[in-house]
Amino acid sequence: MKSYLEMAPEELQAEAAELKKQYRQFQKMELNLDMSRGKPCLEQLDLSMGMMDVLSSDSDMNCEDGTDCRNYGVLEGIKEAKELLSDMMENNPDNIIIYGNSSLNVMYDTISRAMTHGIMGNTPWCKLDQVKFLCPVPGYDRHFAITQYFGIMMIPVPMNDEGPDMDIVEKMVSEDEAIKGIWCVPKYANPTGISYSDHTVRRLARLKPAAKDFRIFWDNAYGIHHLYDDRQDHILEILSQCKRAGNPDLVYKFASTSKITFPGSGIAALATSPNNLEDIKEQMRFQTIGHDKVNQLRHVRFFGDIHGMIEHMKKHADILRPKFEMVENTLETNLGGLGIGRWTKPLGGYFISFDTIPGCAKQVVSAAKRAGVKMTGAGATWPYGKDPLDTNIRIAPSYPSLDDLKTAAELFTLCVKLVSVKKLLEDPDLQAQLRAEAAEQGAEAAEA
Amino acid sequence: MKSYLEMAPEELQAEAAELKKQYRQFQKMELNLDMSRGKPCLEQLDLSMGMMDVLSSDSDMNCEDGTDCRNYGVLEGIKEAKELLSDMMENNPDNIIIYGNSSLNVMYDTISRAMTHGIMGNTPWCKLDQVKFLCPVPGYDRHFAITQYFGIMMIPVPMNDEGPDMDIVEKMVSEDEAIKGIWCVPKYANPTGISYSDHTVRRLARLKPAAKDFRIFWDNAYGIHHLYDDRQDHILEILSQCKRAGNPDLVYKFASTSKITFPGSGIAALATSPNNLEDIKEQMRFQTIGHDKVNQLRHVRFFGDIHGMIEHMKKHADILRPKFEMVENTLETNLGGLGIGRWTKPLGGYFISFDTIPGCAKQVVSAAKRAGVKMTGAGATWPYGKDPLDTNIRIAPSYPSLDDLKTAAELFTLCVKLVSVKKLLEDPDLQAQLRAEAAEQGAEAAEA
Repeated sequence: MKSYLEMAPEELQAEAAELKKQYRQFQKMELNLDMSRGKPCLEQLDLSMGMMDVLSSDSDMNCEDGTDCRNYGVLEGIKEAKELLSDMMENNPDNIIIYGNSSLNVMYDTISRAMTHGIMGNTPWCKLDQVKFLCPVPGYDRHFAITQYFGIMMIPVPMNDEGPDMDIVEKMVSEDEAIKGIWCVPKYANPTGISYSDHTVRRLARLKPAAKDFRIFWDNAYGIHHLYDDRQDHILEILSQCKRAGNPDLVYKFASTSKITFPGSGIAALATSPNNLEDIKEQMRFQTIGHDKVNQLRHVRFFGDIHGMIEHMKKHADILRPKFEMVENTLETNLGGLGIGRWTKPLGGYFISFDTIPGCAKQVVSAAKRAGVKMTGAGATWPYGKDPLDTNIRIAPSYPSLDDLKTAAELFTLCVKLVSVKKLLEDPDLQAQLRAEAAEQGAEAAEA
Repeated sequence: MKSYLEMAPEELQAEAAELKKQYRQFQKMELNLDMSRGKPCLEQLDLSMGMMDVLSSDSDMNCEDGTDCRNYGVLEGIKEAKELLSDMMENNPDNIIIYGNSSLNVMYDTISRAMTHGIMGNTPWCKLDQVKFLCPVPGYDRHFAITQYFGIMMIPVPMNDEGPDMDIVEKMVSEDEAIKGIWCVPKYANPTGISYSDHTVRRLARLKPAAKDFRIFWDNAYGIHHLYDDRQDHILEILSQCKRAGNPDLVYKFASTSKITFPGSGIAALATSPNNLEDIKEQMRFQTIGHDKVNQLRHVRFFGDIHGMIEHMKKHADILRPKFEMVENTLETNLGGLGIGRWTKPLGGYFISFDTIPGCAKQVVSAAKRAGVKMTGAGATWPYGKDPLDTNIRIAPSYPSLDDLKTAAELFTLCVKLVSVKKLLEDPDLQAQLRAEAAEQGAEAAEA
């Protein structure tokens, strides 16, 4: 099909008329589909139903060290859960705390503690005039929501194919003492699906922050969440890189089993340096007597070891892979060559990131919604919900069935076309500009 | 036996010699017993092993309203868990949020949120020069630890047979805007075991605090934790009393199933007014996507309803009652009439509160420890760990077996006698003063 960027106004108008007709057909279907959140689907949940059988009234509820998991105590988590999650996170079990059901809650608590008590003896952030965080964009809306809730100023940093733009990160972090953190989803990032390159991880580990209490908030949410067995991203382990760089305390690393077993009924973990651990445990002992050890034991008994967990993840991949491929194929079939959208093709994680031409994302999401398909709100991937160019849309293919997903993806691409055509008709200068850019990229590609 | 208060120095010395001999016998036994914390014993934990069977891989994991408990969502807790805990807490399900495994954590979060964001639009406590809490004494050490951690000044308020001294509470709360809260364990209080009288609850509900953001932190930890079926304390429901008094937002009420099912693997809850709920949920949605709904469902399926829970609590009572009676009988047999100790005889909860004569509690706990019996640290029941008269000791009879408890209680009474004899020998004025007080009390009792 001819690129929309090359179409004359009358061609665009004809196309718009045809697209509207198709859109009305979709509206008649009274769809009610959801591609908004990274929610596992029913088949994925069923994979973990064996978890409900590993403990019964006949079970030995003791840990290997004799601790009765049913009673109070063990602030840091049981030994065997630390071992399992340390294998998952590629860290030493001694560097790990096992928490409750939500790593988001651990991140929230980490910021909250920094606000009221400061990090490792530094001034509590609530006593400072200003605290800032770097926010690679597009990024995870719930990260941005936490920092916003605590009144932390968020500074967007562009993401490229290797992670956040490190020239910007290095400069800002080394110059501004008010910058206390950076949010990172380093592997199969939310929403771009890209993984940080080794070079990026090393540069992060070697940062020279102006603030002593600057920390990297390393949310490795998708560490073993591959879609393919033969093509997998691998990222450098950040704690060991920080240690090598002489920056042992620079990072808090978060993970959970939310998208491995049951979201909301998994176990979360934090890995960090001994100094940070000491700082954190000093606070934790006021907050709780301990997290749910029975659920920790349940996870350990269910998986046995990391091999069991990896095998389990292959089953998730078998369910998710066709969904990602379905969406990618639909995008390619319906939008390929039209010049009105770019999207990522991740090897893992839960999201595809889609960029419209400038000024269209909100309208696309709104058009999809009016026809019964819920997407993540446009702008959600930016701090304060403000995507300056209004281009980014997060696609979450996991939850709907394959059939529903096909329908939803068809509708989505239709909405992209419909909104884009209108935009290009309204703004011929934009069309000319995009056409020039496309030509330039084509030339570059040909050269390379 | 003759009261120690009536003994001449030479009699006290003879007694001391005899007691030392007995103490050495105990030391030879190389005991290792623990009466320090309110931990359920193994037999109590076994009562809830059926919990491990109610969900299996064949189970329907949906709530009555169709919510799949295995997936993300439902910030406030599933409907049926709210119903079960509302029956337990005597509140409307609409006034309840179900949390994770620890009500202590909910209390901590409540204070933490007040520090960083304030309560219902009032100034965040971290922005104030001083924040104070009233702390009825003796009280719960973990409450005091939270307020201390946040730098809140703690003001002890004496407990009497009906609860905190309300003359003091009313005066202070109405006059000092810096007083933002009061810690209450209203039923089978930790550690005294007394329950607040109706008059006390009404006076609390009718407080006229100088601070708009003053709240009663109502930790109803032992609401259904009776020791007897025929003799039970009942307290007025505080939320409804506050509503009647025109103070609907005055109270946060906490509870959990920690000492009903498994400590650390139960579910916690908060009941409060619609205004407070709105304020809290506004924060919660940044902190988590939801708590462990599978565990909520497990609790509901295990108990069925409040009747099931009450029947379950009778089994706890059958295990705990003989332990409490054993300790009380040992105290009466060994210390009755000696004039050197007073103790409570609670109808529920987890503790007996013991008061030595002034200046003896630390030494008693230390003597018990040296002979292999661990008690709660003396002073722990007071803010900052400072019991000004050094008299209060918390006895926790739940965890040891009946045989071990017998031994531990015998040793404890021996330590009380030993330390008291030494104290009275060192301080004849104290002996004279206590003798005069005892005579006065005897006269009053005879008159009445």
